[in-house]
Amino acid sequence: MEFAVVKGGGVTTPRGFTAGVAEAGIKYQGRYDLALVVSEDPAVGAGVFTTNKFAAAPVQVSRQHLAAKTGCRGFVVNSGCANACTGQEGLAAAKMMTKVAAEVTGYQPEEFLVASTGVIGVNLPIEKVQQGIREAGRSLSYERGSLAAQAIMTTDTRAKEIALQIEIEGKKVSLGGMAKGSGMIHPNMATMLGLVTTDVAITGECLQQALVMANEESFNMVTIDGDTSTNDTLVVLANGRAGNTLIEDVQSTAFRLFSEALCEVCLSLAKMIAGDGEGATKLLEVKVINAPSLVDARKAARSVAGSSLVKAAIFGKDANWGRIVCALGYSGAEFEPDSVDVYLGELLVAQKGRGLDFNEAEARKILAKDEVLIIIDLKAGTFAGRAWGCDLSYEYVKINADYRS
Amino acid sequence: MEFAVVKGGGVTTPRGFTAGVAEAGIKYQGRYDLALVVSEDPAVGAGVFTTNKFAAAPVQVSRQHLAAKTGCRGFVVNSGCANACTGQEGLAAAKMMTKVAAEVTGYQPEEFLVASTGVIGVNLPIEKVQQGIREAGRSLSYERGSLAAQAIMTTDTRAKEIALQIEIEGKKVSLGGMAKGSGMIHPNMATMLGLVTTDVAITGECLQQALVMANEESFNMVTIDGDTSTNDTLVVLANGRAGNTLIEDVQSTAFRLFSEALCEVCLSLAKMIAGDGEGATKLLEVKVINAPSLVDARKAARSVAGSSLVKAAIFGKDANWGRIVCALGYSGAEFEPDSVDVYLGELLVAQKGRGLDFNEAEARKILAKDEVLIIIDLKAGTFAGRAWGCDLSYEYVKINADYRS
Repeated sequence: MEFAVVKGGGVTTPRGFTAGVAEAGIKYQGRYDLALVVSEDPAVGAGVFTTNKFAAAPVQVSRQHLAAKTGCRGFVVNSGCANACTGQEGLAAAKMMTKVAAEVTGYQPEEFLVASTGVIGVNLPIEKVQQGIREAGRSLSYERGSLAAQAIMTTDTRAKEIALQIEIEGKKVSLGGMAKGSGMIHPNMATMLGLVTTDVAITGECLQQALVMANEESFNMVTIDGDTSTNDTLVVLANGRAGNTLIEDVQSTAFRLFSEALCEVCLSLAKMIAGDGEGATKLLEVKVINAPSLVDARKAARSVAGSSLVKAAIFGKDANWGRIVCALGYSGAEFEPDSVDVYLGELLVAQKGRGLDFNEAEARKILAKDEVLIIIDLKAGTFAGRAWGCDLSYEYVKINADYRS
Repeated sequence: MEFAVVKGGGVTTPRGFTAGVAEAGIKYQGRYDLALVVSEDPAVGAGVFTTNKFAAAPVQVSRQHLAAKTGCRGFVVNSGCANACTGQEGLAAAKMMTKVAAEVTGYQPEEFLVASTGVIGVNLPIEKVQQGIREAGRSLSYERGSLAAQAIMTTDTRAKEIALQIEIEGKKVSLGGMAKGSGMIHPNMATMLGLVTTDVAITGECLQQALVMANEESFNMVTIDGDTSTNDTLVVLANGRAGNTLIEDVQSTAFRLFSEALCEVCLSLAKMIAGDGEGATKLLEVKVINAPSLVDARKAARSVAGSSLVKAAIFGKDANWGRIVCALGYSGAEFEPDSVDVYLGELLVAQKGRGLDFNEAEARKILAKDEVLIIIDLKAGTFAGRAWGCDLSYEYVKINADYRS
């Protein structure tokens, strides 16, 4: 399927969505750290959240609001403070964020989802956040989608946003998304914030199902450092402005079309996150083919993309295929070790589980690129899976050795 | 239980064991890279090996030899080449190693276990290895235990060995061990070589059971970088020279005494491995108390000790307790987030799942030590578990960015 990418598009590309931002000064100074995204029409929402037992206060509040099924009007997001491990105070602060967002827009608190990212265990500076939300509310416009993508960054080196258009039953449907990633990116809900908008008309149930599927193929296949955070949040709002017939059947062609587009949005954002991992100099893509099942393919791909030793070797441009098969060997995926072929890009470096006398200079050239592709042929079935990660650099250690200060 | 540590002791401390070494020049020059340890008396052997699907040739051969139950006479070990992913040739080479060991000592090939460590996917230089084994065989003596511990090193910065003595039914029983670790250290058979000797009289079945238990509490609780290698091997030989009544009942006091001592040997070696992780500047110990089960305690401890973000924070002397609870949160262990207390050494930094306003200077002082202890009180039961790891430093990345050259 082909998707029309909307150049420079983001969360305000779908019709009826506006965004506002503010410099609340929560942790960072002189930059936006608060974003508010609002739908002019009532919307339905769906969400996938962290599996971490220490789910942050905003995650708990967003879950409650989605469960209430009152419909959604928008989301409010801050960077610089995760509002995690902050007890009852933290819960009250997260609720307060939705309350102020409601006040400034004229809707209900339950219609807002909330997300936070930053240091764990620090209380939100309530006054600053309230003031920030009000300021963001006053600045709502169609032009501020990209500023919102900037506002949610922490150690990200670049903003991450995308917008696509598809046609469903003759109607133009748009999807827009923004994300923040960097450290703590891992399967089991790729530990990040992903915020998606769309003007499709769809039921909440269908939207949730499409999101779960998209998440599994995208954010859950991204790994930076193996840590799953307390704040992982992927939400999507759909306001129906596109005017298509309401999608209410997961077997329908319309659902499939929308699903694929949502997956593409999530995939694009997930890859941006992988390529911008803390200290990363390269995007690593691991493609496992001919696996006995989808689960095996994904397990194998994630294991290789997540191996510290593989990642360090990629950083060093070292074609150490032994570490690739080693990570494959402990992945838990089913295959015969003596059948496995490994490629770096198009260069076959190991065949039937054994190393070849490949051209080291050519391998080095492949590993010197900004994007490195590892292909693993398990020859054990017909399923394929892809995972993304980044190299492990000195810079990663530096960023994470003293993050709090 | 108190153990008498034998100062400067190692694999030749137990009676009847000799060791020989050689500079075979397999990869390294000007250092020992081949070790042969032999028992003068027939011995029984036990082993625990990697769970990696790409089990190296020496692992396969050692498994076969143990399965044959012909008894053991010794083990032969080389560094500089893992003999992994080397197909039939590799298997033949590993078998050849046991054959040459047998020739030079006058025993049978099946009585020897074999282990290799080094780069994956490179064939063993057969001539050099054969010559090395013969040289090691000619140099067998009681004095070469420490040289053997040196010979098995790869990126280890120091040799790892220990010997203990206990009394069983009035007889003095000795245990000696050596290990190599460094990179690729992880639960599921802490990816390393551990080679233990003892003069206890014990059946092969009891020895195997004692080893499995010891391994779970020691090597399996050590994590350096999350990668489980193709060559993990932990073996023990028992030759009965101590003259105690044969231990053949796992319910007996004698078994319990020996078991505890074996566990202590493995624990000591595992901690040496953790503290000497690639690029490590500190030993990290994570102790989880009051867990609902042993499995939960171990899961939780391993998750924290293995978190890249925790490790980087420890390197940076940053008391980032939020990362500790975060790693706890995705460990899969059962507990109530609102009950958890976290200590750095004796300093309480988080209580009931929330951060305290602790003394940062004191925390920094604790984190500046060579050994850092994190205690986590889950308040959910009566079980405890410990895991060991190291910090994540620039040096780790450097070592692993270009290991093959």
